[in-house]
Amino acid sequence: MYHDSIEKMMKEKGISTGDRVSVNKKGNTYEGALMPRIETGDRSCIVIKLDNGYNIGIDCQGAKISKVSSRERQKVAAAGRRTAPRKGKPHVSIVSTGGTITSRVDYKTGGVTSLTDPEELVKHIPELGDIASVSVSSPFTIMSESMTHEHWQKLSAEVSRHLRKSEGVVVTHGTDTLHFTSAALSFMLPGLGKPVILTASQRSTDRGSSDGPMNLACSARAALSDMSAVGICMHGGMNDDFCILSRGTKVRKMHTSRRDAFRPINDIPLARVWNDGRIEKLQDIPPRTGKVPRPDTAFEPKVALVKTYPGCSPDIIDYYSRKGYRGIVVEVMGIGQLPTSGRNSWIRTLRKATESGMLIFGAATTLYGRLNPNVYAEGRMTKDAGVVHLGDMLPETAYVKLGWVLGHTKSADKAREMMLRNYAGEISERLHPDSFLY
Amino acid sequence: MYHDSIEKMMKEKGISTGDRVSVNKKGNTYEGALMPRIETGDRSCIVIKLDNGYNIGIDCQGAKISKVSSRERQKVAAAGRRTAPRKGKPHVSIVSTGGTITSRVDYKTGGVTSLTDPEELVKHIPELGDIASVSVSSPFTIMSESMTHEHWQKLSAEVSRHLRKSEGVVVTHGTDTLHFTSAALSFMLPGLGKPVILTASQRSTDRGSSDGPMNLACSARAALSDMSAVGICMHGGMNDDFCILSRGTKVRKMHTSRRDAFRPINDIPLARVWNDGRIEKLQDIPPRTGKVPRPDTAFEPKVALVKTYPGCSPDIIDYYSRKGYRGIVVEVMGIGQLPTSGRNSWIRTLRKATESGMLIFGAATTLYGRLNPNVYAEGRMTKDAGVVHLGDMLPETAYVKLGWVLGHTKSADKAREMMLRNYAGEISERLHPDSFLY
Repeated sequence: MYHDSIEKMMKEKGISTGDRVSVNKKGNTYEGALMPRIETGDRSCIVIKLDNGYNIGIDCQGAKISKVSSRERQKVAAAGRRTAPRKGKPHVSIVSTGGTITSRVDYKTGGVTSLTDPEELVKHIPELGDIASVSVSSPFTIMSESMTHEHWQKLSAEVSRHLRKSEGVVVTHGTDTLHFTSAALSFMLPGLGKPVILTASQRSTDRGSSDGPMNLACSARAALSDMSAVGICMHGGMNDDFCILSRGTKVRKMHTSRRDAFRPINDIPLARVWNDGRIEKLQDIPPRTGKVPRPDTAFEPKVALVKTYPGCSPDIIDYYSRKGYRGIVVEVMGIGQLPTSGRNSWIRTLRKATESGMLIFGAATTLYGRLNPNVYAEGRMTKDAGVVHLGDMLPETAYVKLGWVLGHTKSADKAREMMLRNYAGEISERLHPDSFLY
Repeated sequence: MYHDSIEKMMKEKGISTGDRVSVNKKGNTYEGALMPRIETGDRSCIVIKLDNGYNIGIDCQGAKISKVSSRERQKVAAAGRRTAPRKGKPHVSIVSTGGTITSRVDYKTGGVTSLTDPEELVKHIPELGDIASVSVSSPFTIMSESMTHEHWQKLSAEVSRHLRKSEGVVVTHGTDTLHFTSAALSFMLPGLGKPVILTASQRSTDRGSSDGPMNLACSARAALSDMSAVGICMHGGMNDDFCILSRGTKVRKMHTSRRDAFRPINDIPLARVWNDGRIEKLQDIPPRTGKVPRPDTAFEPKVALVKTYPGCSPDIIDYYSRKGYRGIVVEVMGIGQLPTSGRNSWIRTLRKATESGMLIFGAATTLYGRLNPNVYAEGRMTKDAGVVHLGDMLPETAYVKLGWVLGHTKSADKAREMMLRNYAGEISERLHPDSFLY
């Protein structure tokens, strides 16, 4: 809320946040959308978003405010729109799912919510038109923290459909669970023969420091390149010089706010995508075959991901058993241990659960490095109690894979075999020395 | 198991693994301890640990094997031993709790277990004697994955006791949960006026690449330096040139096996401790005051740490409520969100739990960066449902702190206030740009 006197004035003039207003102060006139007050801001200032995208705060003392026009209603997204095709430009499909990259300030709450007209994306990033002819579709709009496997299934179908008529697909998405979705698409699009590039924005497009436009432009370049891969393409460093493209199963959001938050884990990037247009491959990536996969999206939602820590009770395994869960990925300690002695020993509980059919897999809570349960007696005990260790697979990737695997088989043996089989580069044969804290 | 014929021969001669044996082959004689077979090794070879610490495999074809002496019984640790004081050397107390740094191969299982005679530590690291006069005590011996808050309490008391009679204390420990223990000691030793340095080893002391000796020597140097801090001192890089000393509340094991696995998170190291003896401070560290704190160890074990991911059910909160848990640290997504829409929305469950007295705190699942629930509408909803966001505090540190805070108050308001108060540098005022992936 603004200061009472401002709220009163606004009420009298019939002005609401979101309306276009004109503010005259000391001979200068500012026109733009009236923004909600920033919680930490001065309550006697109003905030206007100018047409150049910048916000300014104006002290209301001595200012004259008038309404220019009412808040524009935002249009609901319609699927299948396409930019006017540019002569000779190859075609990239953008599949928009929501998130910061397609969001702006919500005038009701003062927070940021999804913008529902995907065409706006293209309007904001003119260089996209120089790279490709693009179409935009939106199977759903959701902030990524609320995604579920059902969204991954819909998205796989949408991506597959668009791969038929384009050189590659760019998926725009919220950042929070982007790496789960990239893992899901990696498993759900088997035999993929074109690039599927996921991208997002850590900073709102309202802000000068937004990474969205460059991420989207670099992703379009990657989507046109000669490769078959699901990857995440986001800022590589603090500057606007290049993005890194990371394998969809070996990447994680590692920072709450930095633009270079997405880092390859137990892997180096597949490529650097320079803002000047160059694509610098850092690994052998399978070349483009053109194959459009039929989505393979069966998924068992009764799976969980459990973190362990000193004092953690093994009762959590019983809880998931009782709830009818079929599989659990446990973030095991160190190189593959769980508590083996004292009141909190996990061994009996693990054995009981795995003998009754629960599938329990271990992934490293350290994130980096490879598990080897044979190094310590405690690791061997954990393994002997039925836990299957997943090498250098990320816990997040292992969780997605487990749901996908259990969607495909009812056999415990088959599921264990599938979890250890390398479908989409989720297990590394050897770890590149630069892959630690890349 | 060795090959049947070897097992039979060993049985006939009364030789067991662990015995000292002599092997004569082609005129060469090898003497040492008979090791258990390595699972992946050749079944017709036996493995001998030579007196220089190296293992060799010898093909039994044409070899003569005889028993020299029976397996030495390992002695159980006795507290309070001390090396002969060296003239003019300041005194450092080593408190040994187990882990790889004090372990060797277990002849029964072929894995690695704790060595129970702490005096061996000093024997292995002669340079320790050049740095300090040391005493060694062992309040308990445990692999770190089985530690609980009761061990932290005992350890705090032991450390405090030893601080009275030494310049500083070095705690040797397993690596897996070392960062939880360093956080616990940070809170349980309020007003600490001397260094308390935790160290460990990622590689067994049996191996040429063991980091244990250098980590222990550098830790002893840090324990004698002019600072008041709880820190973890471990290898800083791939070479044996320096260790880094990281603040006890801002550090995490980030790799399963690398010697430089312990990294500061949202912080840079307090200091580099060079193997040549120099201590290079990288931050202002409070100087030594000499104050020996009275341990403040009250701890509420009914606390949990919960990871979130797409599709995660909020029922886990109800589960912990029913089990009588008083507080939960939730690894929230991105900059502070939890699922807010659809069937898996957490909002109602969070509100119900927090209104009925459960304390729920948010820490970043990205590990790096700071939470700010005000950026997105979904973050504000999460906050409004009663979740208190903990800035840049690590989830692991937040878990330990929550148990400690709830050991000190029954008031929810007071607990929330304490969680947000900075006791041991667990909350950074600002993030150093180098603190990402240091």
